[in-house]
Amino acid sequence: MPLPQLTQARAPLTREIEVVNEFGARETIAIPAERDLTVYVDKRELVTLMTLGAHPEWLVLGYLLNQRLIASVDEIESITVDWDVNAASVKTRQGIDRIEERTSKRVVTTGCGQGSVFGNLMDEIDSIRLPESAVLRQSQLYAIVNAIRLKESTYKSAGSVHACALFHGEALQLFVEDVGRHNAVDTIAGWMCLQEGLPDGEKIFYTTGRLTSEMVIKSAQMGVAVVISRSGITQMGLDVAQRVGLCAIGRATNKHFLCYASPQRLVMDAVPALAPQPLRVRA
Amino acid sequence: MPLPQLTQARAPLTREIEVVNEFGARETIAIPAERDLTVYVDKRELVTLMTLGAHPEWLVLGYLLNQRLIASVDEIESITVDWDVNAASVKTRQGIDRIEERTSKRVVTTGCGQGSVFGNLMDEIDSIRLPESAVLRQSQLYAIVNAIRLKESTYKSAGSVHACALFHGEALQLFVEDVGRHNAVDTIAGWMCLQEGLPDGEKIFYTTGRLTSEMVIKSAQMGVAVVISRSGITQMGLDVAQRVGLCAIGRATNKHFLCYASPQRLVMDAVPALAPQPLRVRA
Repeated sequence: MPLPQLTQARAPLTREIEVVNEFGARETIAIPAERDLTVYVDKRELVTLMTLGAHPEWLVLGYLLNQRLIASVDEIESITVDWDVNAASVKTRQGIDRIEERTSKRVVTTGCGQGSVFGNLMDEIDSIRLPESAVLRQSQLYAIVNAIRLKESTYKSAGSVHACALFHGEALQLFVEDVGRHNAVDTIAGWMCLQEGLPDGEKIFYTTGRLTSEMVIKSAQMGVAVVISRSGITQMGLDVAQRVGLCAIGRATNKHFLCYASPQRLVMDAVPALAPQPLRVRA
Repeated sequence: MPLPQLTQARAPLTREIEVVNEFGARETIAIPAERDLTVYVDKRELVTLMTLGAHPEWLVLGYLLNQRLIASVDEIESITVDWDVNAASVKTRQGIDRIEERTSKRVVTTGCGQGSVFGNLMDEIDSIRLPESAVLRQSQLYAIVNAIRLKESTYKSAGSVHACALFHGEALQLFVEDVGRHNAVDTIAGWMCLQEGLPDGEKIFYTTGRLTSEMVIKSAQMGVAVVISRSGITQMGLDVAQRVGLCAIGRATNKHFLCYASPQRLVMDAVPALAPQPLRVRA
């Protein structure tokens, strides 16, 4: 089956605005250029996404996959994004079966907002089999955290966005930023399904956002057994990670991290030297 | 009309778990105890919210108000939350008109996740009239930032939650944390509609989260003309703030802040002394 035809619609990621600071002085800063994108599937309106719009076609593809509205990229003939009308037009090869019914159940999820996960993703997690062999070496983890630190980004210039990245071992495959971290992970899912021959066991997912249940589920759905976050984890994120055997790492900054789940996947090959203890002078 | 009958269901806000750190050592930390709460309106399932569950009755009430499913607290007879079955049962006095139709349109919003705002909140913003007299004095802003800093919180013990607070002038009225910042603001909206005689012009809203379009819309809907955030703003958040004349303050930490919109509402009564410039030694 040929890959779907995708446009490459681009739009500016930041916008300059004038603000007033604490001294009463005007200054010019950049903010993220969030915009709305209404998704039509076979001419039927599905949903409106708020996005930075860096890779809207991959975002829409990943959204359809992660919401389980399509099972494979083969079902899509084309995705056409037009920023003049803020629309993404998806053409399927054979239609999406029972789309009304499958988009009718709403779960308002954590995120920072009230996310909407169609259907019953939670019901699906018991069928997920993550590769047994997948491990994370501590040295890889440190290389990944450093690679993210060095990345030029919208976050550095404008703030207020989340980033996700997919690594193959220590090699960065794709770095995506968006106003919502779920858009960023969906974009990665969309990109992944267009690639061939990414070996499952080597995939490592990085996110700046918290490890909520949806974030962990989405990673597991993509066959990724190792997730690293700069932030923490929530109880339901932990529950899902334990249930699917996903190695969940959080608070990853500099040399520090916490492994919340599946520590057996962690290879401690770069344990830092303990910081020297301050001398204690007897009083 | 009597106020609705509300249960006072409580549940632990944090949970202790064991993790492995960068030295390979086990340690015990606290994480936020996120849980799901399915909302039934007159026995019909409406939505499932993921929440920390500090004030679930106010959350449900604020959710119904902010989604414009009810126009006033008078429409609600009771809200009964039972954590044994993770359910909130809402009893209305006269039913909610056309509830199917009004919950059918989805906008997946920014948040950190993909939020779901039923209906057409954006269409409503032109009808919002914020009090002309509302101002923010710089000295109030600093007092508010300091009050938040001193607050004992789930964030301090477990991280990974957002906080919102409502102030009346400098006086803290309510401080709410939740895994999603929209739950926190909805909880405040629910609490507000149960109070009497909060003067509009003195209300100031604080959030740790970004000023996205929904956050600004929700503040404006609550009649709050001044919003302060520890984080930044997105383009659509700015657009809405400018359109409704809301004073949007971001990056508020210590003495620093940026005023993104409606600087005419800002009274600069506490401009900090400029930091002394470092001596320049001629080379």
